Amino acid sequence: MGIEIERKFLVVADDWKTLVKPVFMRQGYLSSQANRVVRVRIEDQTAMLTIKGKTEGIARGEWEYPIPVSDAQELLDGLCEQPLIEKNRYRIVIEDLVWEVDEFFGDNAGLVVAEVELNSVDQAFVKPAWCGEEVSHDHRYANANLFKHPFKLW
Amino acid sequence: MGIEIERKFLVVADDWKTLVKPVFMRQGYLSSQANRVVRVRIEDQTAMLTIKGKTEGIARGEWEYPIPVSDAQELLDGLCEQPLIEKNRYRIVIEDLVWEVDEFFGDNAGLVVAEVELNSVDQAFVKPAWCGEEVSHDHRYANANLFKHPFKLW
Repeated sequence: MGIEIERKFLVVADDWKTLVKPVFMRQGYLSSQANRVVRVRIEDQTAMLTIKGKTEGIARGEWEYPIPVSDAQELLDGLCEQPLIEKNRYRIVIEDLVWEVDEFFGDNAGLVVAEVELNSVDQAFVKPAWCGEEVSHDHRYANANLFKHPFKLW
Repeated sequence: MGIEIERKFLVVADDWKTLVKPVFMRQGYLSSQANRVVRVRIEDQTAMLTIKGKTEGIARGEWEYPIPVSDAQELLDGLCEQPLIEKNRYRIVIEDLVWEVDEFFGDNAGLVVAEVELNSVDQAFVKPAWCGEEVSHDHRYANANLFKHPFKLW
């Protein structure tokens, strides 16, 4: 098990967009229960099955396994809860930390969120100028909730 | 994706018991929804993450991935729906077919079920004398249902 510790912010400008090329992600859920999330994700030519435990503050257990892309396609189209989440992810390195900026499509179009993964819950970091309000504790922004209660209905 | 085609019978005698040594299995569910089952299983020194789709007659899609036993232990104890299923499985070969006889413990103690995996839905086979009533279509006998509605409550 790994521990995922991350903080999440709304994105308030778009000058980060020219820094890197995005990758397109398509993901869905075999379980979207808060304490046992099972996610299938295709990113470029790779696919991953990821299990996440209960969030405690900004930390949660995570188990991740690579799977064949053809399996992931079958699972996404045939088994996962619908609709799927589709987004572009921009990975931006700032002072040794990787910021992941997600630009959502479909019913979540208009939503842009930045996440930074930390090594400890109290780790200090520089917040980029294009980051606004912190939403780490707002469960509406969890991808496993966004497909059920999309941004366009808020 | 593989297709799992199997027929299931109640076991009415115990002379099969002397034929082979059993393996002990401990398994639990990250999703027990009928159309997207996610199962974690430890058998001896190996562990497997298995995804099963919707049952259509006696067939269903199945995707299976080996995972580290230590991960499976964490998932079974920390994330899976409780209680877990514990059983002894006896694998008995009869005329080129493998019969799996499951002897359940815990709240399902007293239940003994035999399954045979087939290559096609209409494949002919010899039913052993210790097999009684067929329960292939009775969803109460699905392991993903047995932990929620155990045999002792029937």
